[in-house]
Order: sequence, then structure tokens, then C-alpha cells
Amino acid sequence: MRVCRPRCTAAPAVAAPATTLRFAKYQGLGNDFILVDNRHSATPLVTPSQAAKACDRHFGVGADGVIFALPPQAPDSDYAMRIYNSDGSEPEMCGNGIRCLARFVAELDADAPRRYRVDTLAGLIQPELLPGGRVRVDMGEPILEANAIPTTLQPTTPEGAVVKQCLTVDGKEWFFTCVSMGNPHAITFGYQDGTLIQTDSIDLQRVGPLFEHNPVFPARTNTEFVEILSPSHVRMLVWERGAGITLACGTGACATVVAGVLEGRLDRSCRVDLPGGPLEIEWRQADNRIYMTGPAELVFEGTTSMTGDEA
Amino acid sequence: MRVCRPRCTAAPAVAAPATTLRFAKYQGLGNDFILVDNRHSATPLVTPSQAAKACDRHFGVGADGVIFALPPQAPDSDYAMRIYNSDGSEPEMCGNGIRCLARFVAELDADAPRRYRVDTLAGLIQPELLPGGRVRVDMGEPILEANAIPTTLQPTTPEGAVVKQCLTVDGKEWFFTCVSMGNPHAITFGYQDGTLIQTDSIDLQRVGPLFEHNPVFPARTNTEFVEILSPSHVRMLVWERGAGITLACGTGACATVVAGVLEGRLDRSCRVDLPGGPLEIEWRQADNRIYMTGPAELVFEGTTSMTGDEA
Repeated sequence: MRVCRPRCTAAPAVAAPATTLRFAKYQGLGNDFILVDNRHSATPLVTPSQAAKACDRHFGVGADGVIFALPPQAPDSDYAMRIYNSDGSEPEMCGNGIRCLARFVAELDADAPRRYRVDTLAGLIQPELLPGGRVRVDMGEPILEANAIPTTLQPTTPEGAVVKQCLTVDGKEWFFTCVSMGNPHAITFGYQDGTLIQTDSIDLQRVGPLFEHNPVFPARTNTEFVEILSPSHVRMLVWERGAGITLACGTGACATVVAGVLEGRLDRSCRVDLPGGPLEIEWRQADNRIYMTGPAELVFEGTTSMTGDEA
Repeated sequence: MRVCRPRCTAAPAVAAPATTLRFAKYQGLGNDFILVDNRHSATPLVTPSQAAKACDRHFGVGADGVIFALPPQAPDSDYAMRIYNSDGSEPEMCGNGIRCLARFVAELDADAPRRYRVDTLAGLIQPELLPGGRVRVDMGEPILEANAIPTTLQPTTPEGAVVKQCLTVDGKEWFFTCVSMGNPHAITFGYQDGTLIQTDSIDLQRVGPLFEHNPVFPARTNTEFVEILSPSHVRMLVWERGAGITLACGTGACATVVAGVLEGRLDRSCRVDLPGGPLEIEWRQADNRIYMTGPAELVFEGTTSMTGDEA
């Protein structure tokens, strides 16, 4: 399972003494992380509650999460990755975060390969450094079967996929395609009357929650509003389940290209412009896997004093 | 003139080459700043546009502003201070920021005095380090004359001050006292019917703008809603002119104690609890000056790469 920024999995609390922490701050499309060199211990150097304090943007370092480069767990892996969100919860994986991790370990270890095998709570993920500092990540295969997404919308294909199904929300009849990348996405390119989405006209703060909490999505949903600039270039706004308006959602960009291909609107290789910047998405015919390519940049390096957990 | 976080004075653009910048991040009551050791040049090492980028909380270091410790301008001063806001504008001074500066220069220079004479665009300011890492700042004398604040509310004292004047806003009759600390403040402790303010019941987002833009304040106003816990302890919410809801406003805390003394509600020494933490305010009878004491803390030290200004 890969998820964008879930906040459901509780991480175990581990006591830690007061100590000086060296870190680097990276960002990918404005999704920013404190990176910690944790290669010498399988236990994260920062506890979930310390991570939450460090992520505070006024009283702490400020970040969307803390990511640890840990020793590998499997014999054929290079590193293990764990991540704590800014609320101290632990997601399985984060597409923007693993790009940052790849750049971080490349700086730590000059002998490191250009393609990493990284153990995550979502399984083995393989980010690959490209020229110009970009990182390509194999995001796996999309899940299309309605019950697995999950959605109660009626399937429209023999394989059980929900493609260009109509859903009435906020007095409008929207066309939707549903895709799971481990987390559920509902993607719309336009309305049943044939009008296409123009992202400028979407009041995301108002309509986002109406989709997220619509009863046809029993596990709620991320929702993508997509404006087609050409068959290989779209502009996308995302309302993230549990997070609302964000600068970027890697799984959402992947799901958008899958939906666009299924609706016959987009090429399998497509640039997706998010508020935080562009991602290149390829849904490869040969292996049915989705490859996400995007930036990750060092913002600064620092040291901070971490105090132990409070009772 | 001393102001909380004005955004009106444009700073001159100065070109700078790409370079590595060492900095320290400090915060006072959640108001956070990038501190730069600029003692070897009278020109800030960071331009206003670089400062704006560095203050971005997702793509940059993240801060409310960048503060420079510069060589003194006057022969009897220790340092000069300049500050760029997160939008690149340059305020005259900032009460939370100068506390951070005092802690920062104490770390830079072990021989530094405990009380600094700091040249600012608002004149000479003298922060003083106290035990426990707190800093006391002489904030000067309050201005009470209606025209100087400015307000068109009718003066209620022979000296022309506006004390406990009634103002109808949002269908309620509020009692207000007006005080300038270089910037205008309107302070309310309760309504004309005798009911006192309870901060929990104030819908700041809704009523704040109604005061800020009320025509009786020709230069607009900061507005403080104050709940009295005891004559020496209040809880204060602030709607900042041009900034809205903020974690702390040092001049607002000072103005609040002045208003409370003028209304006969507060002692001259009073603790003011702001959303970001407490400030100790003293309006000294001997010299009519206001002394603000509060925290300033190192969050982290770092290095970042600054690129030159773009055209």
C-alpha cells in the first residue's frame, strides 16, 4: 500500500535522551522533510512526539515530516526508510519523501548506487537518481476494481473498473474515474454536459469535502480536478483525504494519468502541473507500472537540540 | 516609531552573488527569525528578495523574517539591527525580533555586555539579557493623544486621551481605550452594559476586520480583546493590522497594560498571556517607559546556499 499522507498508523513511542541532532531539510514540490542519517541504528533517533515538535513551523525546525535513512532490513536492500508525519503518525510511504531520501543518501554516501532498493512499510520501493537532480520512483501498478478502491459507484467496464461514471455533487453532474494507488482517488476531467474542467473555476475548499465525504466512497477519497492542456500535459488541483488543499500529491498525479488514459484523453507519458511544481508520470504498457519523476532539493543543513519525551 | 510587523517600508534591492550563508533560527513566542551574523559589513548579506525566498515555509528555511546583526552606526552603540519581513519589506523594528537578536549576539560574542545598545530604524533600542534566557526591552513611552494615535473618537480626558470610550461594532457597544506604541492600538476589556470580555467568546476572524477598518481609525488599527484574570494577569487576543490573527504582538501587550492602568483595571506590572506564550509588561511610573520581558530561544543553526537575485 502506498499512500500520500495518511495519518492513521500510530508509531510506537520510544524514549530518547536529550541530544544534538544533525539533519538536512529537503523539499520536493514544496512537500518538505527533515532528513536524518540513521544508518547506524534500526531505531529512529527521533521519537514521534519529538518529530511533531520538530515539524512545528513556528516553534520547531518546521516540516511536513521527519524521514529516517535506516540500515536495510532485507539482505538485498540498500536502506530502510521510515517517516513520521508532522502530527507524529507514521504513514507507510510518501512519494515526495522518497525522492528526498534518494538525494539525501546520495550526499551521505558517494559510493551509493544511482538506483536504490529501499525497504518501506509499503514494501520495496526503488527510487533512481536522474541527471539534473531529479528522481524517478516506481510507484507500482494501479488498482482499478471498484470494491478494492473502494467505491460503491457502479463499474462501467467488464473488469469492474469505474471509468467516466456520473456523480452528482453540489448540483452538478461530474464525470469520474476511480483509481487506487494504495489510497483511493476520484479523478474528474469534466461534466456530463461535455464541459471540461478549468481549474481556475474550481472552489476547492468548498467542493473538496463534498467529494471526500460522499457516501459512494466508504473509505473517503482524494479528489483530483484536472484541466487538459494537451494529451501529454495537464494541470491538476487535489483535495487530499484528511489533509485538504496541499501543494502536491504524487499518488494523485499517478492516478490522474491512469484515469486520463482510461478515458482516452491522455497519453501514457504525461506532465502533471501541481501547485508545487510539475511531475512527469509514465504508465508503462510493458509492465503496467507507474513511474513518477520529479524534483527533490536540499534546502539547508542544520543542527538542533532534541530534548527527551515528556511524560 | 516602533511597530509590530508593518509591511510598508520598501527596502533597497542589493545584488548579491551565490554564496553559502550560515544562520541561526530563533523564535520568541512563536514569532520566528533567521539571524545572520553581519558584523563585518554594513550591507545585509541577504537581499530583500532572497529574504523572501528564505522565509518561504515550504521551499525555503521558513521564518517570519530575516534579522541582521550589523556593525554599530553610532559611536556609543554595540550593534545595528535591520530586519526584512517574509514579504521582503522592511519594518523599523520588531519587539519579538530584537529579543532574538539579543540572544543571538550573546552567543556570537562572549565578551558582549548583557545590555545592548542597538541602532534600529526606530532609533536606539536597549534589550537586556536576564537570567533564564529571557530578554527585557525598553519599548519607550506610550502615545495617548487622540490625533497622534490616530483616532477620531472623542477624547475623554483633559490631556486628549481616549479612555473607555464607547464604540458600536457588530451590534454591540464596546468600551475602548486607544494607545499608540508607534503603531495604533484599540484595547477593549468589556461592553458598555458592564459585561467583561471572555476571550473564548470572541470570533476574532469575524470582528477583527470590523475594528481594523472602522472609520474612527484613519490609519486602521490593531485591536486587542483582553480578559482579566487578576489585576496583574490578563489573557489577550490580537487582530493585527495587515496581518490578522498572530501568535503574539509585543506592542499590543504593552498597549494593553497601559489601557488597563488608565481604566483602573490593571497594575503597572502585569503578565499578558498571548497565544504564543506570556510576556511580562511593566509601565514604569518613574520614567513613563514600558519594559517588555519575554523569551527568545535558539531553534537550530544551519547553512544554506543563497543564489543571486533574479532579474
